Amino acid sequence: MLWNINRPDLERLPVIQERIATRIKPPGSLGQLEDLATQLAMILGTESPTIERPQLLVFAGDHGIVEEGVSLVGSEVTALMVRAFLAGKAAVNCFCEQAGMRFEVIDCGLNEPLHPRPDGLIEQRAGSGTENLAHQAAMSPDQVLSCLACGADRARHHIRQGSNLLAVGEMGIGNTTSASALMAGLLDVPARDCVGRGTGLDDAHLELKQALVEKAMLRSNTQDPLLLLQEYGGFEIAQMVGAILAAAEAGVLVLIDGFISTVAAALADRLAPNCRYYLVFSHRSAEQGHRLLLADLEGQPLLKLDMCLGEGSATALALPLLRSALAFYNEMASFEEAGFAL
Amino acid sequence: MLWNINRPDLERLPVIQERIATRIKPPGSLGQLEDLATQLAMILGTESPTIERPQLLVFAGDHGIVEEGVSLVGSEVTALMVRAFLAGKAAVNCFCEQAGMRFEVIDCGLNEPLHPRPDGLIEQRAGSGTENLAHQAAMSPDQVLSCLACGADRARHHIRQGSNLLAVGEMGIGNTTSASALMAGLLDVPARDCVGRGTGLDDAHLELKQALVEKAMLRSNTQDPLLLLQEYGGFEIAQMVGAILAAAEAGVLVLIDGFISTVAAALADRLAPNCRYYLVFSHRSAEQGHRLLLADLEGQPLLKLDMCLGEGSATALALPLLRSALAFYNEMASFEEAGFAL
Repeated sequence: MLWNINRPDLERLPVIQERIATRIKPPGSLGQLEDLATQLAMILGTESPTIERPQLLVFAGDHGIVEEGVSLVGSEVTALMVRAFLAGKAAVNCFCEQAGMRFEVIDCGLNEPLHPRPDGLIEQRAGSGTENLAHQAAMSPDQVLSCLACGADRARHHIRQGSNLLAVGEMGIGNTTSASALMAGLLDVPARDCVGRGTGLDDAHLELKQALVEKAMLRSNTQDPLLLLQEYGGFEIAQMVGAILAAAEAGVLVLIDGFISTVAAALADRLAPNCRYYLVFSHRSAEQGHRLLLADLEGQPLLKLDMCLGEGSATALALPLLRSALAFYNEMASFEEAGFAL
Repeated sequence: MLWNINRPDLERLPVIQERIATRIKPPGSLGQLEDLATQLAMILGTESPTIERPQLLVFAGDHGIVEEGVSLVGSEVTALMVRAFLAGKAAVNCFCEQAGMRFEVIDCGLNEPLHPRPDGLIEQRAGSGTENLAHQAAMSPDQVLSCLACGADRARHHIRQGSNLLAVGEMGIGNTTSASALMAGLLDVPARDCVGRGTGLDDAHLELKQALVEKAMLRSNTQDPLLLLQEYGGFEIAQMVGAILAAAEAGVLVLIDGFISTVAAALADRLAPNCRYYLVFSHRSAEQGHRLLLADLEGQPLLKLDMCLGEGSATALALPLLRSALAFYNEMASFEEAGFAL
């Protein structure tokens, strides 16, 4: 699978910088919002850039590693949360409604399919949960490739419908363990720097999780994103990688959620290095590995609210900032228009 | 002038905490948004709290200190920006439109009244610019009291119209110098810890500004908010203090903008210590004194975007986070509703 991602057209940059510099405000006084407006206009175009049909894709999957006791709750909670998403009753639904963001959830491989299949659920199941990454490869090579393709297909579906911004999030009990292992491999850093408390582990369980990841990392010595996904991945993480790559390939912005989504973004960026230009980071999570990962991607998170929920929740919280960045870019007067003597 | 501000009813707290604890998410996983929801529900009520008719009041005034060269631009820019606000073409207008926040600008004492008086401008002029605080008291005692009363009146006007959240912002070339002096006096800290680059001073002008404030601080040795306003204040800052106090007295939330608005909030809180319970801090500014000031008020800013614009701009950017905090509080399912075994 080859991904052909173009770097955004650098000729746009002086036009954008000139426009921002001539708006009626002291230079740089909108801080990070100016960087954001620059990035958005680089991708959406310099003339009246707007966000159309913003769509969140939440990828859900189960993880064999859960049987080791790395999570406070069992895998059945993944399915319960998917049902709550479909009922519109989880945090992310509330935030999407506030932000005017479209929402869908994709079963990438829960332990069991939901019966009867609920209205609105997208099924792209790569299996019934991954294998236990503590003992063996979590996924087969075929599962990795099929997940990348499925995630990409779903992204392309929404792009065809008119979305020029896709947001990605995830649900999967056990997936901070998977993401920590993926990060340790990709960045070649000690497992302990990548493993955090997930959704609230105590010290003893944190120790266990760290030891499991450390041991699992001994099995392979690769920084190859596809081999890493095979060893330590999750179906939902691999589908997210595919969706991110397909979006960037189509020149579409991708709004990244928290720690796990950022691991998917880092894998995507390693597979196709221009990918990062299309990524906007919603939030720096309370999860300890997130800082290091964002630095690796040169990502500036928009929010720092000490959240650690996942679900794509922070993407919906950040979307109004993107709209405001475009609003000042498009609508503010210039010094000349406002009658300033220059 | 006595302000009678009640501490929010502590009996609400267990009800709120129980509601948040039983929503379908790991405990604490919404981070700062949980603290925000708690504060909002303490003030707006525990049953379906909502924000009604959010209104931003931008207070504008001119400063005699500008003749010392403490600002990159002259006082005429205050009036130009007020006209841009009224034309709907400044950054804050773009952000208010995005957020669905009502906007008004109040002339608290520009150097000259705008002629002809533009539609929509509220005139509550306490004078034609303040005196130069480097050499004498900026305001008379009567001006201080009249500003507090005018600001309070305007807040009460909007509360009568149905607003249960007021946001405050300011415009006034030279007012970071005034705010720095007010902060140095109120917190009794060295002037150099309070003086920053405003909207982009170079090193030489920063030195000048620090030296001016240091010298001005020698004139008085008081922490009294009213005496400080008299010596170092601005008309727009004093009216903001009045608006904040009247809102808190009416049990109405106040959304604070950046450094200068936070100085007004700190003065208000010193005049009536329960005031702080009604304050929500939008943004931690790039201005160096802001961190210290927020710590003094035990304020947790929602955004950290390195902005330093004023105008109330950050209040409009933060408002969607308040709405989202209430959305999760009001609309998320409980574990029981979602079928979790407890």
